[in-house]
Amino acid sequence: MKVTFQIEGESPVIIECNAGDNLLELARRANVAIDAPCSGNGSCGKCRVKLVEGELESPRSRHITDEEYAQGWRLSCSSLVRSDCTVFVPDIASAYQSRMKTADLSSPQEVAIFEECQAQLKQSGIRFTNHFRAVTVCLEEPSLDNTMPDNERLSWALEEALDVEKVEIPFFVMAKLASTLREHRFQVCVKGEVRGDTFQCMEICGPEDTAIVGCAIDIGTTTVTMVLTDLVTGRLLAKGSSGNGQIRYGADVINRIIEQGKPGGRKKLQDAIIKETLNPIIATLCKTAGISARSILRLSVGANTTMNHLFVGVDAGPVRMEPYIPSFFRWDGLLAGDLKLPANPLAPVIIAPNIGSYVGGDITAGTLASGIWDKDEMSLFIDLGTNGEIVFGNRDFLVSCACSAGPAFEGGDISCGMRATDGAMEACTIDKDTMEPTLSIIGDEGQKCVGICGSGIIDLISELFRCGIINAKGLFVREGSRVKRDAHGMGRYVVAFPEDSETGREIALNEVDIDNFIRAKGAIFSAIDTLLSSVDMTVEMIDRVYVAGGIGSGINMKNAVNIGMFPDVELEKFHYIGNSSLTGAHAMVISDEANAKTLEVAANMTYLELSTYPGYMDSFVAACFLPHTDARLFPHSVQEA
Amino acid sequence: MKVTFQIEGESPVIIECNAGDNLLELARRANVAIDAPCSGNGSCGKCRVKLVEGELESPRSRHITDEEYAQGWRLSCSSLVRSDCTVFVPDIASAYQSRMKTADLSSPQEVAIFEECQAQLKQSGIRFTNHFRAVTVCLEEPSLDNTMPDNERLSWALEEALDVEKVEIPFFVMAKLASTLREHRFQVCVKGEVRGDTFQCMEICGPEDTAIVGCAIDIGTTTVTMVLTDLVTGRLLAKGSSGNGQIRYGADVINRIIEQGKPGGRKKLQDAIIKETLNPIIATLCKTAGISARSILRLSVGANTTMNHLFVGVDAGPVRMEPYIPSFFRWDGLLAGDLKLPANPLAPVIIAPNIGSYVGGDITAGTLASGIWDKDEMSLFIDLGTNGEIVFGNRDFLVSCACSAGPAFEGGDISCGMRATDGAMEACTIDKDTMEPTLSIIGDEGQKCVGICGSGIIDLISELFRCGIINAKGLFVREGSRVKRDAHGMGRYVVAFPEDSETGREIALNEVDIDNFIRAKGAIFSAIDTLLSSVDMTVEMIDRVYVAGGIGSGINMKNAVNIGMFPDVELEKFHYIGNSSLTGAHAMVISDEANAKTLEVAANMTYLELSTYPGYMDSFVAACFLPHTDARLFPHSVQEA
Repeated sequence: MKVTFQIEGESPVIIECNAGDNLLELARRANVAIDAPCSGNGSCGKCRVKLVEGELESPRSRHITDEEYAQGWRLSCSSLVRSDCTVFVPDIASAYQSRMKTADLSSPQEVAIFEECQAQLKQSGIRFTNHFRAVTVCLEEPSLDNTMPDNERLSWALEEALDVEKVEIPFFVMAKLASTLREHRFQVCVKGEVRGDTFQCMEICGPEDTAIVGCAIDIGTTTVTMVLTDLVTGRLLAKGSSGNGQIRYGADVINRIIEQGKPGGRKKLQDAIIKETLNPIIATLCKTAGISARSILRLSVGANTTMNHLFVGVDAGPVRMEPYIPSFFRWDGLLAGDLKLPANPLAPVIIAPNIGSYVGGDITAGTLASGIWDKDEMSLFIDLGTNGEIVFGNRDFLVSCACSAGPAFEGGDISCGMRATDGAMEACTIDKDTMEPTLSIIGDEGQKCVGICGSGIIDLISELFRCGIINAKGLFVREGSRVKRDAHGMGRYVVAFPEDSETGREIALNEVDIDNFIRAKGAIFSAIDTLLSSVDMTVEMIDRVYVAGGIGSGINMKNAVNIGMFPDVELEKFHYIGNSSLTGAHAMVISDEANAKTLEVAANMTYLELSTYPGYMDSFVAACFLPHTDARLFPHSVQEA
Repeated sequence: MKVTFQIEGESPVIIECNAGDNLLELARRANVAIDAPCSGNGSCGKCRVKLVEGELESPRSRHITDEEYAQGWRLSCSSLVRSDCTVFVPDIASAYQSRMKTADLSSPQEVAIFEECQAQLKQSGIRFTNHFRAVTVCLEEPSLDNTMPDNERLSWALEEALDVEKVEIPFFVMAKLASTLREHRFQVCVKGEVRGDTFQCMEICGPEDTAIVGCAIDIGTTTVTMVLTDLVTGRLLAKGSSGNGQIRYGADVINRIIEQGKPGGRKKLQDAIIKETLNPIIATLCKTAGISARSILRLSVGANTTMNHLFVGVDAGPVRMEPYIPSFFRWDGLLAGDLKLPANPLAPVIIAPNIGSYVGGDITAGTLASGIWDKDEMSLFIDLGTNGEIVFGNRDFLVSCACSAGPAFEGGDISCGMRATDGAMEACTIDKDTMEPTLSIIGDEGQKCVGICGSGIIDLISELFRCGIINAKGLFVREGSRVKRDAHGMGRYVVAFPEDSETGREIALNEVDIDNFIRAKGAIFSAIDTLLSSVDMTVEMIDRVYVAGGIGSGINMKNAVNIGMFPDVELEKFHYIGNSSLTGAHAMVISDEANAKTLEVAANMTYLELSTYPGYMDSFVAACFLPHTDARLFPHSVQEA
C-alpha cells in the first residue's frame, strides 16, 4: 500500500505503508512537513490535508466544516490509511518552516529598536570589542638559503605582526597552507583570535578577503532569527529568520522532549534545528553578506534550556522529569565544528547560560539586552514566547520565573491563529454599536486577512470585552451579524467573512480560542503577581516594564492591560524592546565584555520554581478572567456599559 | 570494453574501459592492489598478472620468461587493453597490504631489543610518566534540594578528586553525560589529561572501564608497525604491523609525492595510510587488548617527512621541489579527531619532529631511542629503510643526512626480493668448493624458500664474493650447476631450484639484482663517509655503531662489512637496535619527558644535504664496488683465493 503526498509547490513524495498507518506519522517518516503544533493529539486542527484519491478513516472534527469534509479535508493526525491514497498537503502546512517570513527585524522599526538596545548597552559601559583579527602578512619567499618550513615561516610573521609569543595553526589551515601561500605568492590574510600571548589562527586566504564575522542566533521554540555582523565594526551585514523546523515534532518544549527521547530522536530533533533550519539561513545570509562561511569566527545562541539541549544534541529528558536536572547551564568550549555548523570549524559557539530548566539563555541574553541589571529603578522584564518568562529587579537583585503560556501569543492554539506575517490581522478596533471591526492587516495595500496574530488577538479580545460583546469569562453575550453560533451553541466573532478573506474561509475567534487565550494571559499575569509577592513587592513599585518577544512590534499595551495580561501601571512605563534574546546574543558575539556581563547576570539571578510555589495556582485561577477576579487590580480596565 | 580482475582469494572486480587503456592504471582506478614498487616504469617486474581471456598488448620483458609469457603472464604496467579481458591477479600483489606478516616485534628477540631500549632511556634519566588519568568518582545524586546541572556536578567532583581548578568537558562527552551518569547511578570513570590547573576530560564510562592507552606508530614507506601501551604502567598491551597501503602508488617517497599531486591524490594517499592501513591495525589491536578505541588518549608517530605530510593530508609537493620546503617540521595541536583515527577524538597525535625534507621524525625518534644524545663516546646511528638515514655525534653535537638507498634492503628492486617474513631466506653460507648454499628460511620447520629478504641478500652477496663466484663488480666469474646464464648472457645464482621452492619457481639472484644492491649499499657507505668528512672525523673515531630498521633482526654485521656496506670497525662496536622509530615513538607516547627530549634532540641536530655536498657523488661512485674501490678502507673484507 502507498500514500502519495502532493505538496503544494513541490514534487510529490510517495511512501510505502500498511493499512491502518497514521497519516501524520507517515508524513513525518517521509519528511513531508505538516504543521502539527499539538503534536498530533487532534486539538489544534492545523494538520489539515485534502484527500484527492483513495480511502482514509478519519473521524469528524470541530476543525473541519461539513462543506470542507465533503471537499476531502481531513486532519492528518487522526486519519488512518485504508487504501492507496493521494493527499494534497497545502503550503500553509510548512509555513513554520523555511519559506515563512517573520516579523523579526523585517521592519525598520524593529531594526531601530534593535539598534537602540545596542546603544543602551554601550551607555551602560559595555565595550563592543573582541580579540578577533584579520591580519595581512607578506612572508619572505623560501629559497635554498631560507628553508624554514611553511608553518614556522607563517608563525614568525604573525608573531611579529600581532606581537604575540605563540601561533597555533589548526589542522584544516595546515592542510591548505602550502597551496594558499604559493597561490598568493606568500602574501596572505590570516584570521583568528588573540588569546593572551597566543594567536589562534582560524583561516588563511588571499589578501583581498579580510572579512571576519559574528553570527548571533535566537533559537525560539517556534521561530529562529539570526544576524551576521562585522566583528570589527559591529555593522549588521545580514539578517534573516524562519520557523523552527522542530515544530513538526510538537509546538511546545514538552512534546519535543518526549520526541527526542524516542530511539533516534535526539539526532532527528538536532537535525531539524541545525540541518533543516539554521544551515539554510546561514547559507542565505552568507550569500547576502558576500562572505564565506569560514569567515564566521564566533557564534552566539540565545535559546531556552530545552532548545539549547536539542541544539547540541544532549539528552533533554531530565529537564522535564523531577528533579528537573539539565545537563548544563553553562557550556564552555563548544565549537562550530562540533555541531557541523556552516562556519569556521574552530569558531566558538557561545551559549547564553541557562539558569534553570525553564529559564534559559534567551532570558539571560534578553536580560542583558534590557539593561535592567544596570538600573536603580525596579524593572519588570517580560519575554512573551511559547513560554512566558519574567524577570524582576534592578542592579542589586534579579529574580526570575517561567510560566507555560502556550503558543497562543504566536498564533498557536487559536483556530485562526498565525504568526505576525503577511495576511495577519495584527491590530483592530470594534465599533461598540455596530460591532463592525476595523482591521489592520500586515502586508501590502489590499492584503486580505489570512488569520490573526498575537497582537491582533489581544486587541480583538480587549475590544470584544470593552464593547460588551463577551463577558468577563470570555463568553458571547451580544448577538449580531458578526456573532455566530455553531450547532453546539458555541459562539464566535467573525473577523472576516469568507468572501473577504484571503483563503476564502471564514476568519473568526471562537469561545474555545478565547478561553485558550485567557489561560495564556492568566499564566503571564499570575507569574508576575507571584514573582512580585515572592520579594514582597507590589505592582505600584514597578518603575518600568520591558516587553520582549516575537509577538510583533505592535502590542497595544493599553489593551494588554485592559484584558488583565500586564499589570495596570502607567502606559508610559511600558517599553517594547523587540527580540531581546537576539539583541543580547548579538552583543555577546561582538563584545567580550557583554559575554562576561551575561555570565555575571546569570550567576546573580535567582530562579523561582512557580509550579511548587505556594499560592501560584490560586493566583492563576484568579487571573483567568477578564481582566481579573479581583477587578481592583485593574482600575483602568474598561467595559463600557 | 571491460576488464575483469580475478583477484586471488577475493571477489572479482570489473571495470569499464577503453581500448588502449593501461592495465595498471585501470587496476588502480578499480582499487585493485597490484604491487608496483617502481610505480609503473617497467623496471621492477613485480606487477605480474596472468591473462586468462582476451587480448592485451604487452611487450616482452626480462622479468617474464618465455614459458611464463606463453602461460599468459604479463607486466600490468606495460600492458594495454585491446579487448574485453579477464586477468588473474596473484595474491602476492597485495602482500604489502594488510595480510602481510612482518618481522617487527614478532619475535621474542625483537621484543627484548625493544624493551632493552626503553630501559636504556630510563637509565638516561627519562621518566616514563605523563599526565593522563582515569579517575572514578561517585557523585551525589540530584534531588529537588540539589538541582545542580550534570556538568557542574561532575566538574565539582573531578576538581576535588584531582585537585584542579577547572574541568573542561568536551562536546562528545557532554552528549552522553546525562545518560551515562544515570545508567551508572552517578558512579563513573572519567578519563583525561591534567594540563596545569585544568583537567581536560576526554571520556566518561562505567566505573569498571579504567583503561587508558597510548598508541605508538611507526609509519615506514614500506611497513607500518604499531604498539598499544598502558599509559599508567607502560605495559605493552598489543602489537601489530602491516604493509603501508600506499605501496601501490609507488615504492619510494618520490613516486608517492608525484601521485599525491594529481587531482584527488592527497585524499587517495591519506586514505591509503589511514583508512586502509592504520585503522584496521588499530581495530585489531584494540580487540586484542580488550579496550575501546575511545580509551586511546594519545598517539605518537615516527615517520619520515613525506610520510608525515601524506599522513596528515598536507601537500608534500614542495618537499621534493627546490628549495625543498615542507609545510612543517614540528606540528603541535594535532588531534586524532582531525584525522578521523579510531581513537579518542581529543587524543593528541604527537608527530616526532622532522628536521629536513629527507630526515624526518622516524630519525629523531630513532635518535632518541638510540641514546646517542646522552653519551660521551662518538656514535654512528644508521637507519636502514627505503631511505637510509645516518646520524653521527654524541651529547655535544649531532649531524645527520639521508641517502636514497632504494627499497633493496626491504626486498624491493630485487627480482626474488621479499620482506623478512615466512619463506624469506634471511641468512646463508656458501661452500666455497661445491658452491652449494646452506639457507636459513624464516618460518616453521620445513618451510620452503619464497624469496630473499634484506639480511639474506647481504649474506648471499658477501658469500658469493668471498667464494670468488662474483667479482668486485658483482659479475659472475665462476661456472657451475648453481650459476646460470640467460640468453643475453646475464648470470644468476640459483638459491632454490623450482622443485625446492615454495612457489615452484626458481629463486635466484641475478647480476641486475646484485648491481641494484651494490648501489644501495654504496649509497649507505658513501653517506657515512661523507658525513664523517663533513665533521673532519674518520672511521677510526667511531666508538659505536647503532643499526636500526626493518631489515630484520639477523643482520650479519661481518658480512655487511665484508661487502663494504658498513665501515670496517670492530664487530663488537655494532649494536642492532631494531625498529628505533617505533621504540622512540613508544617512549614519546608514554613519557612527557621523552617528548620534550625529542624536540631538544631535533632542535640540536644539524642536517647535511648530501645531494649538493661537494665530493658526495665521487664517494658514491667509489663505493659501488665490493667492498670499495679503495680496498684499504676494508682491511677485514675477504675474498678467498
